[in-house]
Amino acid sequence: MGQLDVEAAYAAPLVSDSPAATRMRRAAVEMFARDGFGGTSTRQIAKHLNLSPAAMYPHYKSKEELLYAIAVDGHGQILDELRSVDADTAGGPEQRLQAVVAAFACWQARHHEHAKVVQYELHALAPEHYRVVAAMRRDTVDIIETIVRQGIRDGVFTVEHPDDAVLAISSLCVDVCRWFPSRTHSDPVALGTAYAELALRMVT
Amino acid sequence: MGQLDVEAAYAAPLVSDSPAATRMRRAAVEMFARDGFGGTSTRQIAKHLNLSPAAMYPHYKSKEELLYAIAVDGHGQILDELRSVDADTAGGPEQRLQAVVAAFACWQARHHEHAKVVQYELHALAPEHYRVVAAMRRDTVDIIETIVRQGIRDGVFTVEHPDDAVLAISSLCVDVCRWFPSRTHSDPVALGTAYAELALRMVT
Repeated sequence: MGQLDVEAAYAAPLVSDSPAATRMRRAAVEMFARDGFGGTSTRQIAKHLNLSPAAMYPHYKSKEELLYAIAVDGHGQILDELRSVDADTAGGPEQRLQAVVAAFACWQARHHEHAKVVQYELHALAPEHYRVVAAMRRDTVDIIETIVRQGIRDGVFTVEHPDDAVLAISSLCVDVCRWFPSRTHSDPVALGTAYAELALRMVT
Repeated sequence: MGQLDVEAAYAAPLVSDSPAATRMRRAAVEMFARDGFGGTSTRQIAKHLNLSPAAMYPHYKSKEELLYAIAVDGHGQILDELRSVDADTAGGPEQRLQAVVAAFACWQARHHEHAKVVQYELHALAPEHYRVVAAMRRDTVDIIETIVRQGIRDGVFTVEHPDDAVLAISSLCVDVCRWFPSRTHSDPVALGTAYAELALRMVT
């Protein structure tokens, strides 16, 4: 996979910030999260916004295009967040891992509807769109992987199978959107802190 | 929730093992996993089986009833598996936790399509059905919780927030069905072993 794919994804004017397009994506997230991508039609989204189906067309030519914009938007937010948190964290791999896991779990909790669509409806993307999103997902996991490998090199992490630990840590963060909020957790920041502690335990 | 709810769920002849009903559930799992519950109609399931929609009716009177049978079947299998593995494991909380986590992750990997429907489509259940399934889910988590609390009492587990650890361990197992198989994991047993090790690290 490449740097190039990812840069292309960023370079393309994929996620429009026009108020109309933003409203369409927001309504689609809500309806996809509730009824699934397969259970929602563009017509229903338009109706929800008191628009004619034709009014959607200049912004999103198909339901798949709308899903793609939602996925690029969500993955881009996660990636930006993790990169900036990682860059801003003073300290070694322990502090960086905790900061990045806290931010990831917190994003998934705070934006659990958007995250659900982002995580569970990727199979509905067209192959060329899926490739762009998959590259963004690999870049997200790479941030965690880089920290874990650094920790092993520094001798502060003792985990034997770093690939499995990276997989498990990512998976733990992703799954937050399935169940959040719950009886015991409704504060995204508190959840992030708890998960950062558990992720650190996995590798130390 | 109660013992009673759960016993009622087991006592009721919910999951028919007639060949016809089993084929219907199997086809529905495949189609729900691929297109979502909302994106699949009973008519499509019947068509897939070369049946008339009317032929489904004696077995499952609605798409929701079919989903309920699939959910009770899946949750029942997981619960039976974890209970029997836990009972069969000699050793203390460390060995029991590893055995139960390995079995849970392995089930989710091996039956990832069934697990996907079981985990992601619960919102579509009728409230009275949801309650039965929720009780089965709590019983599953209770198995992990009992072991973690025993480990803390025995002084072999040092985790500070057992509730969060139990949540994270369950969540880790559940999420397997979202991504399995992957480039790095296609053996359910190997994945179970890896996750058992990471779960133990979370609490020790």
